[in-house]
Amino acid sequence: MNIVLLSGGSGKRLWPLSNDVRSKQFIKIFRQEDGSYESMVQRIYRQIKRADADADVTIATSKSQVSAIHNQLGEGVGISVEPCRRDTFPAIALASAYLVDVKNVDPEDAVVVCPVDPYVEDAYFETLKELSEQARKGEDNLVLIGIEPTYPSEKYGYIIPETAGKTAKVRSFKEKPSADAAKEYIAQGALWNSGVFAYKLKYMMDIAHRLIDFTDYYDLFARYAGLTKISFDYAVVEKEDKILVQRFAGQWKDLGTWNTLTEAMEENVIGKGELNDKCSGVHIINEMDVPVLAMGLHDVVISASPEGILVSDKGQSSYIKPFVDQFEQQIMFAEKSWGSFKVIDVETESLTIKVTLNPGHSMNYHSHRNRDEVWVVISGEGKTVIEGRERKIGIGDVISMSAGRRHTVFAKTELKMIEVQLGRDITVQDKEKFELKKSKRAGNRKSRQSVLQ
Amino acid sequence: MNIVLLSGGSGKRLWPLSNDVRSKQFIKIFRQEDGSYESMVQRIYRQIKRADADADVTIATSKSQVSAIHNQLGEGVGISVEPCRRDTFPAIALASAYLVDVKNVDPEDAVVVCPVDPYVEDAYFETLKELSEQARKGEDNLVLIGIEPTYPSEKYGYIIPETAGKTAKVRSFKEKPSADAAKEYIAQGALWNSGVFAYKLKYMMDIAHRLIDFTDYYDLFARYAGLTKISFDYAVVEKEDKILVQRFAGQWKDLGTWNTLTEAMEENVIGKGELNDKCSGVHIINEMDVPVLAMGLHDVVISASPEGILVSDKGQSSYIKPFVDQFEQQIMFAEKSWGSFKVIDVETESLTIKVTLNPGHSMNYHSHRNRDEVWVVISGEGKTVIEGRERKIGIGDVISMSAGRRHTVFAKTELKMIEVQLGRDITVQDKEKFELKKSKRAGNRKSRQSVLQ
Repeated sequence: MNIVLLSGGSGKRLWPLSNDVRSKQFIKIFRQEDGSYESMVQRIYRQIKRADADADVTIATSKSQVSAIHNQLGEGVGISVEPCRRDTFPAIALASAYLVDVKNVDPEDAVVVCPVDPYVEDAYFETLKELSEQARKGEDNLVLIGIEPTYPSEKYGYIIPETAGKTAKVRSFKEKPSADAAKEYIAQGALWNSGVFAYKLKYMMDIAHRLIDFTDYYDLFARYAGLTKISFDYAVVEKEDKILVQRFAGQWKDLGTWNTLTEAMEENVIGKGELNDKCSGVHIINEMDVPVLAMGLHDVVISASPEGILVSDKGQSSYIKPFVDQFEQQIMFAEKSWGSFKVIDVETESLTIKVTLNPGHSMNYHSHRNRDEVWVVISGEGKTVIEGRERKIGIGDVISMSAGRRHTVFAKTELKMIEVQLGRDITVQDKEKFELKKSKRAGNRKSRQSVLQ
Repeated sequence: MNIVLLSGGSGKRLWPLSNDVRSKQFIKIFRQEDGSYESMVQRIYRQIKRADADADVTIATSKSQVSAIHNQLGEGVGISVEPCRRDTFPAIALASAYLVDVKNVDPEDAVVVCPVDPYVEDAYFETLKELSEQARKGEDNLVLIGIEPTYPSEKYGYIIPETAGKTAKVRSFKEKPSADAAKEYIAQGALWNSGVFAYKLKYMMDIAHRLIDFTDYYDLFARYAGLTKISFDYAVVEKEDKILVQRFAGQWKDLGTWNTLTEAMEENVIGKGELNDKCSGVHIINEMDVPVLAMGLHDVVISASPEGILVSDKGQSSYIKPFVDQFEQQIMFAEKSWGSFKVIDVETESLTIKVTLNPGHSMNYHSHRNRDEVWVVISGEGKTVIEGRERKIGIGDVISMSAGRRHTVFAKTELKMIEVQLGRDITVQDKEKFELKKSKRAGNRKSRQSVLQ
């Protein structure tokens, strides 16, 4: 089975855990049997691999998520990187071309496209396999999943099937209706459209070539920024007559708000937190190092991260976005290709961050125009390169870098440092990257020493 | 008027803003006309001085509060320091001896003793003056304030007066009663005992000398640790027949819990915070640098500090102590005689703090057995002394100190530093203090430089 997981953009509806650089699908929120936590993307990837060990998974996403995906799923997973956002049709065309030209998938093979964030049980993946089989048969051009509705939701689009069987031809689609209209559709046997569909690769490539002028994946990638934004529904679904829908009646949740997300949590507290016995329906998701104490609350979600603290009635939690938008704060933590960082102090002319490098990883070789930096190693081992000069580093070593000096650090083990940035105009934009050339070693200085580079 | 303000011990009932080193009376929570905030101790001190510009105020407290008191009230205020806690009678005896022997107050003068934390309007201080006048007359030995009860509280002791006038002889005292008993007392004209009393200094010194063997203040101070713990009620009030009570009918609040404290706040949000319009009766007191967002909550207090986050139904907020006790965390921020510090990162073998020194102040000259330290100056100017060697410091300077090396820092302007502590056994107990002797200057090194001391 070939699966393309659509990993959507950043969002603030799960602030303060999601932000401009961390999307909700990377928040580690689901407890596993061994006591560790996994994210939405880790959960669905594991579920796919359990349903089909040979499943070939490709994540279609933006450049900003590549580091987080590799950190959470390893280097093995395929990633179709959208150079910029151009809506769903160009994204699916690009991922399809990636499968053909990079992964060499047979154009007669089927592909299942699925959002990365549904919260589902394992039976769902059996339905994905059925979708793949139906698409491969080629009797219909698109095969969708239709979720059996549990209530007349106004949040979802509806699929009206022609018949009541497990597999049926699609008669029509209805966009997000009123509750009354939804009730009527459900009475007619309508199903929720969960955004999952399967097609034969050849079918999609034909449409792509008809609508976009390109030769192969590499050419499409290069032209991507110039493409017109167009949705998959508009470009493909609305023009297609031969669409099949496969019913799914099991657990399916769209974890887009704190309200729905906490419903999927197996325990009430993640991170440091305490509830007294007068609390009911309270969830704490705390990524800070200090405890949260909740007393006498009902149906409230509390979430704390280095970005801020949310305390919300669960019903109200879907309305946080405009408030969060006005905070206009800097990014306080992020996962990077090489590890992660967290802002721990902000002053007018300084910024102090904690940097964690994963073993074997390094930063880009770079310099800053307007700030000096000081690194203090607090755990691990590695080496720095400053203006081409290498130096081994370990706990307690201090490295000072004046503005303009090129620098990087390599982690031998996991390496943690306190980085103090000093200057009047500290921004993430103030960074020039360089290629690192091999140079003479500075030798292994054994004594602990502070060095001015 | 001579006033002794009893500044009680640390408490966790206003966690996370009060903790083992910061008592509730030092939390800056009351907005002033200029937009700044004052603490309970600042508010009452300002109110006393407005009621009586010549009032001689002495704060009776423990050693741990001296820095905070000087920081908040200046160096001018008198402080009677209890070397250790020995209950209220020894504390009042010590403060009285301080007035006689250090402040040279006439023993015929009256003294008013008052807790530091009532939230009252200015009329209250006129009643304190009346108390002082009554005590000076000497017709009765103790003069108390009786608060007109507003409901049959079980939290307070009751004073039963002989008559209904503004000033009356006390017939008897009733300890914290049941609500039913309280109702009955109130029907008989009972008043709340607010813990305020006045006496002639000579009267108290006579009792002190009768119960404790000492010559003067200095001798009493030296013997203090050996004194028996005994309450003022037991040692004095219960044995005294000539007690007067002065009625007070104005606003009087005991700000001991979040519920009562937030009632006294003039606005709903202190610090960074937002409430949506579905919130009612919500207070945010946020000492962190990141925002708190509250959505759809009712009668809830949210308080955040580097120690933790409390989210509590206001009615439940008086029950937090046992939960807070179990957190067993390290002190994350504190005011010191020289400024303040805040823990910004905790690792197994390192602790990173932000240190702020007030202009003209310095730390003790000290060393650590088990940890190295690195200072990075992020704002201000000053000088360090390491093993007797002076060095001027400013923004960007890095100072490394190995374990065992004596060090201190002087702030010329306000001076802020990131201090990284490195070692396997980092504790506040690992500190040896030394006397700093004048020594040769190291000269003014102009170049920015990292130094291994």
